[in-house]
Amino acid sequence: MLILVTNDDGVHSPGLASLASTLSELGQVVIVAPDRERSAIGHALTLHSPLRADLIKSDVYAVDGTPTDCVNLGIHGLFNARPDLVVSGINRGANMGEDVTYSGTVSAAMEATLMGVPAFAVSLDMSAGDNSDYVAAASFAKDLATKIIRHGLPSDTFLNVNVPAGTPAGTKITRQGKRRYDDMIVEKVDPRGRKYYWIGGGQCQFEEIPGSDFLALAEGYISVTPLHLDLTNYRSFESLRQWQSTADKAFFSTDND
Amino acid sequence: MLILVTNDDGVHSPGLASLASTLSELGQVVIVAPDRERSAIGHALTLHSPLRADLIKSDVYAVDGTPTDCVNLGIHGLFNARPDLVVSGINRGANMGEDVTYSGTVSAAMEATLMGVPAFAVSLDMSAGDNSDYVAAASFAKDLATKIIRHGLPSDTFLNVNVPAGTPAGTKITRQGKRRYDDMIVEKVDPRGRKYYWIGGGQCQFEEIPGSDFLALAEGYISVTPLHLDLTNYRSFESLRQWQSTADKAFFSTDND
Amino acid sequence: MLILVTNDDGVHSPGLASLASTLSELGQVVIVAPDRERSAIGHALTLHSPLRADLIKSDVYAVDGTPTDCVNLGIHGLFNARPDLVVSGINRGANMGEDVTYSGTVSAAMEATLMGVPAFAVSLDMSAGDNSDYVAAASFAKDLATKIIRHGLPSDTFLNVNVPAGTPAGTKITRQGKRRYDDMIVEKVDPRGRKYYWIGGGQCQFEEIPGSDFLALAEGYISVTPLHLDLTNYRSFESLRQWQSTADKAFFSTDND
Amino acid sequence: MLILVTNDDGVHSPGLASLASTLSELGQVVIVAPDRERSAIGHALTLHSPLRADLIKSDVYAVDGTPTDCVNLGIHGLFNARPDLVVSGINRGANMGEDVTYSGTVSAAMEATLMGVPAFAVSLDMSAGDNSDYVAAASFAKDLATKIIRHGLPSDTFLNVNVPAGTPAGTKITRQGKRRYDDMIVEKVDPRGRKYYWIGGGQCQFEEIPGSDFLALAEGYISVTPLHLDLTNYRSFESLRQWQSTADKAFFSTDND
Repeated sequence: MLILVTNDDGVHSPGLASLASTLSELGQVVIVAPDRERSAIGHALTLHSPLRADLIKSDVYAVDGTPTDCVNLGIHGLFNARPDLVVSGINRGANMGEDVTYSGTVSAAMEATLMGVPAFAVSLDMSAGDNSDYVAAASFAKDLATKIIRHGLPSDTFLNVNVPAGTPAGTKITRQGKRRYDDMIVEKVDPRGRKYYWIGGGQCQFEEIPGSDFLALAEGYISVTPLHLDLTNYRSFESLRQWQSTADKAFFSTDND
Repeated sequence: MLILVTNDDGVHSPGLASLASTLSELGQVVIVAPDRERSAIGHALTLHSPLRADLIKSDVYAVDGTPTDCVNLGIHGLFNARPDLVVSGINRGANMGEDVTYSGTVSAAMEATLMGVPAFAVSLDMSAGDNSDYVAAASFAKDLATKIIRHGLPSDTFLNVNVPAGTPAGTKITRQGKRRYDDMIVEKVDPRGRKYYWIGGGQCQFEEIPGSDFLALAEGYISVTPLHLDLTNYRSFESLRQWQSTADKAFFSTDND
Repeated sequence: MLILVTNDDGVHSPGLASLASTLSELGQVVIVAPDRERSAIGHALTLHSPLRADLIKSDVYAVDGTPTDCVNLGIHGLFNARPDLVVSGINRGANMGEDVTYSGTVSAAMEATLMGVPAFAVSLDMSAGDNSDYVAAASFAKDLATKIIRHGLPSDTFLNVNVPAGTPAGTKITRQGKRRYDDMIVEKVDPRGRKYYWIGGGQCQFEEIPGSDFLALAEGYISVTPLHLDLTNYRSFESLRQWQSTADKAFFSTDND
Repeated sequence: MLILVTNDDGVHSPGLASLASTLSELGQVVIVAPDRERSAIGHALTLHSPLRADLIKSDVYAVDGTPTDCVNLGIHGLFNARPDLVVSGINRGANMGEDVTYSGTVSAAMEATLMGVPAFAVSLDMSAGDNSDYVAAASFAKDLATKIIRHGLPSDTFLNVNVPAGTPAGTKITRQGKRRYDDMIVEKVDPRGRKYYWIGGGQCQFEEIPGSDFLALAEGYISVTPLHLDLTNYRSFESLRQWQSTADKAFFSTDND
């Protein structure tokens, strides 16, 4: 069995090493990961410049691209065999709520799913700022990989796993929660007097939605969220149709018309 | 009224100029767009390096970042007033199916939604390779902006608009379709003999799903897809629970347990 | 006559516009310049990724590369005709002393010289922090261009021009001076708590070398320094040979041995 | 003794490892090198974005910047002690003639010299396309380092060392030679039909200048060229003054006037 491992913290990240080492108990592991940190890179795909993949040691490729690029290269370009499973992580910090749309780690699993390869992402919460180790997360990843290989995954679906710091109280299947976003631009001046902006900072706060990833972690559980790539908000169709007041009647024709 | 316009084709793109010019009939338009093409950049956010925003002419800022960065700067950093609407486009080429997760244009509207500002993305199909002009798309964007300002948008939801080349047959509310992905890596050798990889190429084919964005465009309609940021595949919960065979009983505890 | 104009402050820089406009009195001017600021980029050449050149308006190309790349594309790739002259600038800030080796503006003129096209770089001192205008510098550039076209330049040699703020007292042919470099790293912490470093800052101080570029500007003169690309320190040959003590005799064999 | 080692082929390059390992026989070696290949980056200094230095293993830092940035960080930012020597290489491929102005490897030694630290660059010729090993070059670098520590270097001067493939016939002090540059732009079309340009290719040819680096290598010798940062072409002063024809008399006033 061939397992492709990637991440968005970069090829030198300890979370990646821990994951790869543990998964190697299940089969051959190849690492194809960004040569530098590419977190918050979303589902970015490098279409306008070419990519390089350097074999920096046995079964470890450093790519000058995104996690999504790495999965593409790992599935279509670098190897003769097609991976049986793609695992992305262990990310330094949780990826929950709408942050999954920013996350390079989660997007790598998304990409594998588009390519038809079962996949999951695994992230370790570090909100407490402690130096959590990756052992519990890697161990859970191995168990989950075993189950996925045995049972398969629902069609077009991948799993987003978040592991709390410390010893997990158990595992919950969750829904994607909702963050509250603060103002988040810091304006600064560089050593040459030019203005620049840092995005970021702000406390991460979340809405207390029952069954959500945030809540599971807050209660000490490992959160497993099944995600798919259909962003359609089906429930909004009705309210959009209500735009069809007398005046706007002709504006939308829907399939049911 | 303040309308923020951005895109992923870059600040010099004709689609951006056409959109901004037409929307300026509704209120003040400011452009905050990437200084170079950043398509397929997904929902990437620049957290690890700072951003510059250069005022290159009146009400036009060029940012050395992603469309998502531009929306962030436009909402939180550059202006005293908060935009009333964010419009992203007019993209050169359609953004349908799972490609919305790659699209910088769509991700800009996603970002505005996270920040609580109503938003939509608009893309012009160019699959025929023709030099379609942007007039019909810009005109529809103006009409849609007017409606959004009047009616608002459903909670946490933005619209992904795709406009066919030529004269549209009408407008349909659609669901996100599904692409079929081919192998898509091209291996080449640079002038110095080093191997490199191009991602991409391959024909864009789609599944014929009734009510989908692809199908609406194929039939000559403008497609309007309401999207949200909840990627949870709720329908998969049941099948994941079936993993709880006798042997795996303890593996998942769900909220309902 | 075809004049290629570039810079390192980017294609939207006012100094570039002023220079191009004034030189257009002498012949056809085409601008090929970086799409974003690339100062301090030295003689960097983009060999490991491809370049794009977007025609953003008539006779103006924005390139996603360095000033050196722009000169390469402008001489070999973009036009049917070969430029008769390359002028780089007007840089925002002087380029004197060893800073010429960092300067993208100066390196563009260097590159043209390697390609056999006469060239000069022109920079405007802004050390006083004032908003000097570019008129005097552009006017001098036009005069100098006229002379170069008439007389040619010494073999393998280009000119590095620095113009003081205000009204110049005259023009001097100078030698490259010497800066004094301070410690220049600023250590900071980003909004996510990660350490980063800014290079730069520090006052620009110089040694008072008679006939140097620094001194000419300090006295209010335009400085014109003829530069070439031979970095050999011929005067050091003798001292290196003195390493050949008895013990080290065999270490160096020189041509004259 | 503290020796700082860097290069432009990137922190994973075998030439860097070979050099560092051999120099560690002389004292403590720290590696501060780019996290990815940055060849042909010239004397580029990252002033407009911040830098990260990741300790990827004991005494090895990977920097998301240029070789010049690495030397800056290594001298001013990362360590308490100031390096006694900076050695850059072993570059994959020779750096001779005007190519020294493009070379990141050579520029790293240039930067150290500006900071007052003795330095040299070492490159291994691979023009034959063979898989030369780095042993002879590393061994010569160790000998040269020993001599520099004992004798010092001439003021403001660093050494550019090029080592031929195979067993060297001896060592020569040389002058910087001259390359002949061919047309060197390759125009291509990417998988999405957009035009792009590769700089490069073309055979490397040189002028047969006695005492030059090119000639020394062609004859099987190690070439050691003392370089400095004064690019002034003193011999051209006279011909520039001849521009002062009657008509142009007032154009240049030189120091001697």
